[in-house]
Amino acid sequence: MYTSSRSVSLVSGVDLVTPRRFAGSAACRASAVADPNDVREWFDNARNTNRTTVAFASLDDLPGWHTDPRTGVIGHDTGKFFSVEGLRVRLPGAPVESWHQPIINQPEIGILGFLVKEFDGVPHLLMQAKTEPGNLGGAQLAPTVQATRSNYTRVHGGRAIPYLDYFQRTGPHRVLADVRQSEQGSWFRHKRNRNMIVEVTGDVPVLPGFRWFTLGQLHERFAVDDAVNMDARTVLSCMPFTGDEPVPADGDDFRSALAHSCDERRGGLHATRGVLNWITDARVRADLAVEPVALDGLPGWVRRAGRIRHEDGLFFDVVGVHVRSGEREVRQWSQPMIKPHGTGVIAFLVTRIDGVLHALAHARVEPGFVDSVELAPTVQCAPSTYDGLQHVPRPAFLDDVLTAHPDRVRFDTTMSEEGGRFHDARNRYLVVEVEPRLEPPDFRWLTVWQLADLIRHSHYVNIQARGLVACLHSLLSTETRSDGGA
Amino acid sequence: MYTSSRSVSLVSGVDLVTPRRFAGSAACRASAVADPNDVREWFDNARNTNRTTVAFASLDDLPGWHTDPRTGVIGHDTGKFFSVEGLRVRLPGAPVESWHQPIINQPEIGILGFLVKEFDGVPHLLMQAKTEPGNLGGAQLAPTVQATRSNYTRVHGGRAIPYLDYFQRTGPHRVLADVRQSEQGSWFRHKRNRNMIVEVTGDVPVLPGFRWFTLGQLHERFAVDDAVNMDARTVLSCMPFTGDEPVPADGDDFRSALAHSCDERRGGLHATRGVLNWITDARVRADLAVEPVALDGLPGWVRRAGRIRHEDGLFFDVVGVHVRSGEREVRQWSQPMIKPHGTGVIAFLVTRIDGVLHALAHARVEPGFVDSVELAPTVQCAPSTYDGLQHVPRPAFLDDVLTAHPDRVRFDTTMSEEGGRFHDARNRYLVVEVEPRLEPPDFRWLTVWQLADLIRHSHYVNIQARGLVACLHSLLSTETRSDGGA
Repeated sequence: MYTSSRSVSLVSGVDLVTPRRFAGSAACRASAVADPNDVREWFDNARNTNRTTVAFASLDDLPGWHTDPRTGVIGHDTGKFFSVEGLRVRLPGAPVESWHQPIINQPEIGILGFLVKEFDGVPHLLMQAKTEPGNLGGAQLAPTVQATRSNYTRVHGGRAIPYLDYFQRTGPHRVLADVRQSEQGSWFRHKRNRNMIVEVTGDVPVLPGFRWFTLGQLHERFAVDDAVNMDARTVLSCMPFTGDEPVPADGDDFRSALAHSCDERRGGLHATRGVLNWITDARVRADLAVEPVALDGLPGWVRRAGRIRHEDGLFFDVVGVHVRSGEREVRQWSQPMIKPHGTGVIAFLVTRIDGVLHALAHARVEPGFVDSVELAPTVQCAPSTYDGLQHVPRPAFLDDVLTAHPDRVRFDTTMSEEGGRFHDARNRYLVVEVEPRLEPPDFRWLTVWQLADLIRHSHYVNIQARGLVACLHSLLSTETRSDGGA
Repeated sequence: MYTSSRSVSLVSGVDLVTPRRFAGSAACRASAVADPNDVREWFDNARNTNRTTVAFASLDDLPGWHTDPRTGVIGHDTGKFFSVEGLRVRLPGAPVESWHQPIINQPEIGILGFLVKEFDGVPHLLMQAKTEPGNLGGAQLAPTVQATRSNYTRVHGGRAIPYLDYFQRTGPHRVLADVRQSEQGSWFRHKRNRNMIVEVTGDVPVLPGFRWFTLGQLHERFAVDDAVNMDARTVLSCMPFTGDEPVPADGDDFRSALAHSCDERRGGLHATRGVLNWITDARVRADLAVEPVALDGLPGWVRRAGRIRHEDGLFFDVVGVHVRSGEREVRQWSQPMIKPHGTGVIAFLVTRIDGVLHALAHARVEPGFVDSVELAPTVQCAPSTYDGLQHVPRPAFLDDVLTAHPDRVRFDTTMSEEGGRFHDARNRYLVVEVEPRLEPPDFRWLTVWQLADLIRHSHYVNIQARGLVACLHSLLSTETRSDGGA
């Protein structure tokens, strides 16, 4: 009566996709397909083979792009891809109550997707070694597919995108995750990508530049700077992941507390309905007013020498680049990019409550969010900005993170943000354990499972916090790795 | 360490608010506070005491309102409340691919809230008998509070809204539900209200015009035309409700199948991740383009004799009214309203699959939705519209509903939509049981619990489908009522 892809049997509400396959210990099982030495060598080679060159160029001299003489908005001649516009933001009651800024407007919804396949009962992910112009250190581990809509409708006439069909025609496959998620709300206006994880059973050809990894092998790379790219992190955060059971009695209390935190059956400090109440309240209270304005003459910003800068040299520049690439769909192009100043800090404070690890999530307003407020890390900022800002208090908890005793730092890796729109945007991702403390009104202690449960839906958890969820998941694997490590 | 309102203990993930309190049989327990005869008499009195008079008026002659001479937009002189604007809609691939229409723009987020309190272990809801100008048949049962933001910030200088404080300062109380939900996406642009259910333990004074009802007593009124208003229905759909356990072996298979359908522990035809995949896909595919345009000269519409009509007399008119009320915050006012043509049909086809009732939900595009697609009833239309539309096919399943054998009609009550913006907008709410059948691509068989689970989050289930969820919940109570019935 029903087509086979939908004939799920009615067995007491159990979802047949068992997250337990993606538990910490399961992730570390050895693989017949992905030999650890081979994987390591392939990855090292990819990182050391950077065939992309990027040269700064004037915004006035980008072939294919033009500046609207009336508004100063920078757009592509086809009207596709994205544009750089001006934004006026008002947020009464915030430390800075109003400001202007340039922002990238890219309303199209692209696809970020992982193919997953089991070999000998062990789930593997098809990783891509991808070089992006804004990521300066060579290739990084990327999802199987990362495609803007302009990409996959082939506006620029590039090559077809490999594996895209699995994500556009999911009928024969099993979709483990499919959710539109926001991206940087300070740099993108209403940007969203479709995060997908698709499990296949048939043969999948492995093309040059792609490799099967076990989840454990991928998790190991989270300890390496600039190894796992932003798109991989956000899609991984959507993976139906869980803590181990039983927790190995190896004396590692942190890992046990983390495993409990990933376990749906363990409770958290707050019931879910209380968390939803808190988020709804924050959204209704957020009196955010955002208005597109001309980029030309944007208060506080100057366009000079072919780039746009803040008059105090803060925040970021809008720059132009010429790119020459040996591995992207198109071999040579120019584009504007956002170039932030200084390395950022993206950190969760975590604490144990009744043996369950909790992360301190922040209900944060960003001007580019579709829905004004999303859950963010405890700390998300570029510390150097605050050296240049008078009369603006340093962000809450920043100094707790920066001065933490090394014994309390559970994760500390510097990672790159998206290299297609941002030039050398890097952040230190940190997880710092502290003693339990009171929550300020816009903060709540949540379990990793509560965050992951919200990530099943759009617009709840921002991309920085999703990245940290992927980092926390990685800590379940790396300490018990069985394949030799990197 | 934590404030008492947040000190939820960590007992195996159990939410201390037990939906089972709101199960069908529990809802029907007798009440010491809400005597059934008294409740019935109070309700009948309220319906028969209509102190509101409404007179049509020209849109050109509404004190406090003006028409923008440039755009034809009708707005309030304060810039508050709402406006009536023009909209151009394009939806390639739909039966009608583009059209223009007037629409109400009311971006403020109001509060619709129920107070809940247990007496002798039985949960009661504080109902309000509320007359609204657009509801012609007298008072209806309304939530404890229904307040636009203009209302509760008292823009019009009216009286304070009783009980509002419970919803604005929830600290001492228990919030059972708090979620922003959309309203009619064909008549409202981006309209959302905050749906809240707040449980209190202290004494609550019962003011004139208010009365405690058990859930069972309220459910009985679902069988009465124009008795339970739209705002009550939408908030009730957010109630953490569940099926009975065990299902009474009273031979009523439909009620058993419905109880199973409300039970989280029973599975449905589709796993939740498959449902989310289907919704995400529908949203990404929906190529909806919506653009505010002038109301003056809107193609297909004419403003004549003080009202705006479609040139073929279809859909709805925009009319003006003068209102004189004995019970609202302000005693006399004028305003524009939408006056639809003909009574609508809002219906779920339902079927049993493995003994579990499933409702056929429709992924529907409406121009006023914040997120383009929400889940709608199987059928949602005004049938008379299709008599006037050439070359447009009748909606799928409409004739299955209209020609169903009476034995298969499980629910059939005509109910009013919001009487504050719509004049005499009434719909037949129907639940019709059918044999299992294949799903067209934009339809899925879902359990009532799956719908209720999505209703915990914003923008998934439209107001018509939420109303039907409340109707389905009511069927769990009414057949076993123990207090004498209405």
